[in-house]
Amino acid sequence: MDPIVETARSAKAASQLLRTLSGECRAAALNSMADKLISCKEELMAANAADLAAAPGLSDAFKKRLQITEKIFKYMVDRLQEAAALPDPVGKILEGRTMPSGLQVKRIAVPIGVIAIIYEARPNVTTDAAAVALKSGNAVILKGGSESLRTNRVLAAAMRQAAEDSGLPADAIQLIESTDHAVVGELLKQEEFIDLIIPRGGKNLIKAVSEGTRIPVLKHYDGICHLYAAEDADTDMTVSLTVNSKCQRVEVCNALETLLIDAKSAPRLLPAVAAALGEKGVELRGCAECCALLPGIKAASEEDWETEYLAPVLSIKIVHGIEEAMAHIARYGSGHTDGIITNSLSLSERFIAGVDSASVLVNASTRLSGGGDYGMGAVVGISTDRLHARGPVGPAELCSYKWVAVGSGQTRS
Amino acid sequence: MDPIVETARSAKAASQLLRTLSGECRAAALNSMADKLISCKEELMAANAADLAAAPGLSDAFKKRLQITEKIFKYMVDRLQEAAALPDPVGKILEGRTMPSGLQVKRIAVPIGVIAIIYEARPNVTTDAAAVALKSGNAVILKGGSESLRTNRVLAAAMRQAAEDSGLPADAIQLIESTDHAVVGELLKQEEFIDLIIPRGGKNLIKAVSEGTRIPVLKHYDGICHLYAAEDADTDMTVSLTVNSKCQRVEVCNALETLLIDAKSAPRLLPAVAAALGEKGVELRGCAECCALLPGIKAASEEDWETEYLAPVLSIKIVHGIEEAMAHIARYGSGHTDGIITNSLSLSERFIAGVDSASVLVNASTRLSGGGDYGMGAVVGISTDRLHARGPVGPAELCSYKWVAVGSGQTRS
Repeated sequence: MDPIVETARSAKAASQLLRTLSGECRAAALNSMADKLISCKEELMAANAADLAAAPGLSDAFKKRLQITEKIFKYMVDRLQEAAALPDPVGKILEGRTMPSGLQVKRIAVPIGVIAIIYEARPNVTTDAAAVALKSGNAVILKGGSESLRTNRVLAAAMRQAAEDSGLPADAIQLIESTDHAVVGELLKQEEFIDLIIPRGGKNLIKAVSEGTRIPVLKHYDGICHLYAAEDADTDMTVSLTVNSKCQRVEVCNALETLLIDAKSAPRLLPAVAAALGEKGVELRGCAECCALLPGIKAASEEDWETEYLAPVLSIKIVHGIEEAMAHIARYGSGHTDGIITNSLSLSERFIAGVDSASVLVNASTRLSGGGDYGMGAVVGISTDRLHARGPVGPAELCSYKWVAVGSGQTRS
Repeated sequence: MDPIVETARSAKAASQLLRTLSGECRAAALNSMADKLISCKEELMAANAADLAAAPGLSDAFKKRLQITEKIFKYMVDRLQEAAALPDPVGKILEGRTMPSGLQVKRIAVPIGVIAIIYEARPNVTTDAAAVALKSGNAVILKGGSESLRTNRVLAAAMRQAAEDSGLPADAIQLIESTDHAVVGELLKQEEFIDLIIPRGGKNLIKAVSEGTRIPVLKHYDGICHLYAAEDADTDMTVSLTVNSKCQRVEVCNALETLLIDAKSAPRLLPAVAAALGEKGVELRGCAECCALLPGIKAASEEDWETEYLAPVLSIKIVHGIEEAMAHIARYGSGHTDGIITNSLSLSERFIAGVDSASVLVNASTRLSGGGDYGMGAVVGISTDRLHARGPVGPAELCSYKWVAVGSGQTRS
């Protein structure tokens, strides 16, 4: 049998066993995985160094994503332990009622089944994704980038061993080791065994996966995120939220790309914002009105408004009222994360109702639209889909549900 | 521009307006649609008669599905009024918390956007689907069978007029009138404008739609539904639940197809069940053990266990304990609706945990796994998918959600 079919089939079998195990058992396995990671740290770091050494032609940015630094190692271990400590999403009664007939109806969270994650360089996705998937009782098939194969082998072996030691089927965690490009195509055909695919990476990867499969795909597209500083926006808060949204980490999907400033507050806000961003080395690109107020900055082109920079660059546009701000967001935004800075209740309510994004923020940094700051713990990413899961995808979002109805002989008339 | 592109584009525009209207306004439109249906009844019945007259070569079963009887007319009107009376699913706060940082986080139900329903003969799907979709603030594109085009034209015109009279955009309800087969293919390409497709009809229709589009598809596949009468199953309840599950309406997805009887209770239950089903004209097909206990009945073949009869035929298998019953359901069932008849708490708990179906019932007819008996009101169908919606699909299931986070300057550190 094709090895990919065998992988998918054994993941399905593992998921059927996993579904019957307790949350306590799954939590113990996650803690055991964290321990195992610590005990095999030397081997892991050596494998990671070998991956880095084998890739001399790669860009510095790529190597940075591939490398497990001390900070990232700690983060990986923490995430496994955090996932273990989260409340069990499986078995949660999502709603329930007793009908006039006496039928007791409940909707209960259950695992989805088998989830395949297709991703690129970052090795921490290997542990993060496995942690969230297992927390919700799913088996996981991991297909990482070929450049991190040595690293991922050590991680997967450690997690499989820890799973087995805790009474979970080792096959609940599967790593696809083949670096042949055809294996992804083969994986996308396993609709009999795989229930969900999550591609983590660039637009092209996500597009190729979605177009090549009949399995449901949870998409994590661009974040072209906006902040709108309303006419009454506080100066200090606008500076602080803009700097944090743009600079706290530039290469992530919920970093700020465009600042919209109301014309009435622009003369007051723009100089302060520009000074603070200048200190952080952020390049500004403004609309014509903005350039008139901030002489010397680069003019923004049409392309700027539709670009996810993922870099220390910010486009700034002056808008005339909230409707123009919302129209700009509707036209150029990606429905990921958009916020307003205001002290006006009516303006904030208008913005919340009118902006159709996965996360709509009031007086908060766009960087907060993740799992941790929403109280969801570990997440596998931030979905830009409208179906099943929208926004941060944590353990609860990797669950399906079933209806349970208990009666005493009720029939339909 | 291609008329299908124009239809999809105007549905999207209507959905963006619809999203901002109140639940009161949508409910008023649904009531107005019911009134309009009543006032155009004569025209509707004439159109339906013309559809029937234009289709002399069709089977009686097909004509039965196509015909709007008095009973079905009343049902259509009732469904619109029922949908109007249901609580508004849009804007519901699905969860919420205040984080230690002071950030107030809420998850709020919002409409999905534009939903396309592709279906076959039954004209009541036209009003049912529009009712559920509009209730949740979605625009709907209806593509019914060509045989019911005259009927659907009258229905769509009435609903569009009623929508407009109530301040809703008429384009929130769109009927595709072209009977050219290519239009469905064109519709499946409108991923820019359509957010969800629901095919209602046979396996081949659902399969063709899922394979031909990148738009998410909510699938309503077969119901191969089981009841397992445990060793302690009450005789009267077993007879009553079997008869109701099989006979109340044979052609629907949650009708019973296979009865599993525990070997310990078979000598007691089988004669009573067989007598009651015999009176109802149901043909029985049994496993070897069953045939030994009920001489003269037809032997079931392997094919019987995997067949959705949708007809007065029932397969019966004798099983030796609950594990064999669950293994049979896992192998041959379709994950739609399966139930157990027992007074044992441990057996019912084992069955609920072990059977991975959208609806798991205890001591209740399989026919109850619909929307009404679960307290969900109108539904567009029963999903056999595991993502987004599983089981009955009502107004709440036709919603997405967004996260709203209100702060006072919170940043990420």
